[in-house]
Amino acid sequence: MSELRKDTIVGRWVIIAKNRAKRPHDFEMSLPSQRSGFCPFCEGHEDKTPDEIAAYRDPASEPNRQGWRVRVVPNKFPALRVEGNLNKRGEGIYDLMDGIGAHEVIIESPKHLRSASELSDEELREVLWMYRDRLVDLKKDPRLVYGMIFKNVGAAAGASLEHTHSQLIVTPIVPISVWEEMTGSLEFYNYRGRCVFCDIIQQELATERRVVLDRPDFIAFCPFASRFPFETWILPKAHASHFENIQKNEVEGLSFFLKEVISTIEAALDRPAYNYIIHTAPFDSQELEHYHWHIEIIPRMTHIAGFEWGTGFYINPVPPEEAAAFLRSVERPAPTRSTTTVIGSPTATS
Amino acid sequence: MSELRKDTIVGRWVIIAKNRAKRPHDFEMSLPSQRSGFCPFCEGHEDKTPDEIAAYRDPASEPNRQGWRVRVVPNKFPALRVEGNLNKRGEGIYDLMDGIGAHEVIIESPKHLRSASELSDEELREVLWMYRDRLVDLKKDPRLVYGMIFKNVGAAAGASLEHTHSQLIVTPIVPISVWEEMTGSLEFYNYRGRCVFCDIIQQELATERRVVLDRPDFIAFCPFASRFPFETWILPKAHASHFENIQKNEVEGLSFFLKEVISTIEAALDRPAYNYIIHTAPFDSQELEHYHWHIEIIPRMTHIAGFEWGTGFYINPVPPEEAAAFLRSVERPAPTRSTTTVIGSPTATS
Repeated sequence: MSELRKDTIVGRWVIIAKNRAKRPHDFEMSLPSQRSGFCPFCEGHEDKTPDEIAAYRDPASEPNRQGWRVRVVPNKFPALRVEGNLNKRGEGIYDLMDGIGAHEVIIESPKHLRSASELSDEELREVLWMYRDRLVDLKKDPRLVYGMIFKNVGAAAGASLEHTHSQLIVTPIVPISVWEEMTGSLEFYNYRGRCVFCDIIQQELATERRVVLDRPDFIAFCPFASRFPFETWILPKAHASHFENIQKNEVEGLSFFLKEVISTIEAALDRPAYNYIIHTAPFDSQELEHYHWHIEIIPRMTHIAGFEWGTGFYINPVPPEEAAAFLRSVERPAPTRSTTTVIGSPTATS
Repeated sequence: MSELRKDTIVGRWVIIAKNRAKRPHDFEMSLPSQRSGFCPFCEGHEDKTPDEIAAYRDPASEPNRQGWRVRVVPNKFPALRVEGNLNKRGEGIYDLMDGIGAHEVIIESPKHLRSASELSDEELREVLWMYRDRLVDLKKDPRLVYGMIFKNVGAAAGASLEHTHSQLIVTPIVPISVWEEMTGSLEFYNYRGRCVFCDIIQQELATERRVVLDRPDFIAFCPFASRFPFETWILPKAHASHFENIQKNEVEGLSFFLKEVISTIEAALDRPAYNYIIHTAPFDSQELEHYHWHIEIIPRMTHIAGFEWGTGFYINPVPPEEAAAFLRSVERPAPTRSTTTVIGSPTATS
């Protein structure tokens, strides 16, 4: 059983995942890896993963067999587990609880693709629906307060398997990166009465200098205080705090938009490793006027990441204005927005 | 001129270092590197660095020539510069100022050593004195409020040059990692009337489970909520908030202690890349009852760092109790504490 432990000084919760390593020297090997060239995420290898939690699949197919389009399985080495009680307790001045939560892998395609940009529009749309479905499902558990969806592409971004996938970690605490956003945006709201993210969208649209892509429903820009070269944020233009409350039309728009932005970054930077993270409001809140869900995309450029590591200093050698201008200048494949009727939320087996 | 820009949402300041890259694709090459095998930090190559700011050297030698033992030069591609005014200003809802500060490199030996553990006790003591001297000197500038000393060893830890060196970044703002510690420890102090770090020392000494090394003046332990495998903190047992106010006897003690801890980590983990960072109180404060300076040592184990990157989630697969037990069990060279008279603060040329 892993533990959630709180840093007594700064209040940050850390997952101590006891089951992930047998001995100190073993822990690298205990992560899923692909040394043999065999891919457990490809169609036909369903028996090489834990049993599926959810899938979008051919109605005639059976769970844990072929015939799926998007498939969700527990992480083989989960950092958190659903079974048990939180068992909140102290140890002297320290606070801890049992590692209750969920750690799921969303396999985005039965085919061995390497990036979300290789998915078709329909496939990416189904991935977004699955993100939403999993959040809605896990939100029912009153012990859990936050669901973070993120994607690592490439070894330099922390991906141990090449096959395109996302991860979902659901926790009984709010991760510090989101907590800081929640408190900071609330402070702004209390002072100015507006959502700071909405204000940022207005200013970025007005100056245009940091805008990467502008569409009726979404905007992508390199943030004013970008921590990393070519860091790019995607925000819905309409205010909304919870990703899982996304409207059906917005799912369609986001699938086109996300693919276009990632394709642009890949064309500009020669297919870098990258992460994206969906920042959304905690489960235990209704629609919030001060918070605005968004996606942060961070290309992983080597030699740079090392610098701020541990210091809290971010030194970004590429001003966001230059990054955005470069991304705008890149020739990219024309968007493949189809004119056919939108496929709605597909039938799920779970 | 670089800029310091504030993230409007979470309040984090980021250095946008315009001069470090000419074009987006160039920025990796613009960092100092050692591709050719030539080392600009070795004795005899003094003309390959910017002019020295300070050095401990043979009184008969001249600045920027041979004869030094520890040498401080500006970073060749500085993120911040001392010249100019802060020029604090707004840009719509954003806040920024000019990139005023200092970015120095402390070359720890004229010899091409790779880690602080290879320095002699006397050499490491002089490195610590130089840390202190540079902080004291830069603190005189009222525009500057924080000095962060850190060390990257190995490419995986962000070091672009192999020759053992530290870096010092001095800023007109407090970095967010320290700001969080300052506010968190003040909150604890206001509630309990004690220093949280002193409380942690007491508890770690009482339980012993996470202690790596215990000496009369310093303690090293793996923190209860370790973010990273084998993360190890060094704290002076006597309460003190400002590293630069360190007593002469403590410099001696710390040089032995730091070397012993790093040697232990290197013996246990097969000489990993590592970072250490000195966390100390801001310049614009007198001795603080709630803050306690310390050194955080973070070995860089591959495949792990990727996970939390950008998510704010730290998943540590090695519980600190196991890490500490493993570090304690390692055979290490007997400490070489000399019995000769301690060499005091050496003559500096600056």
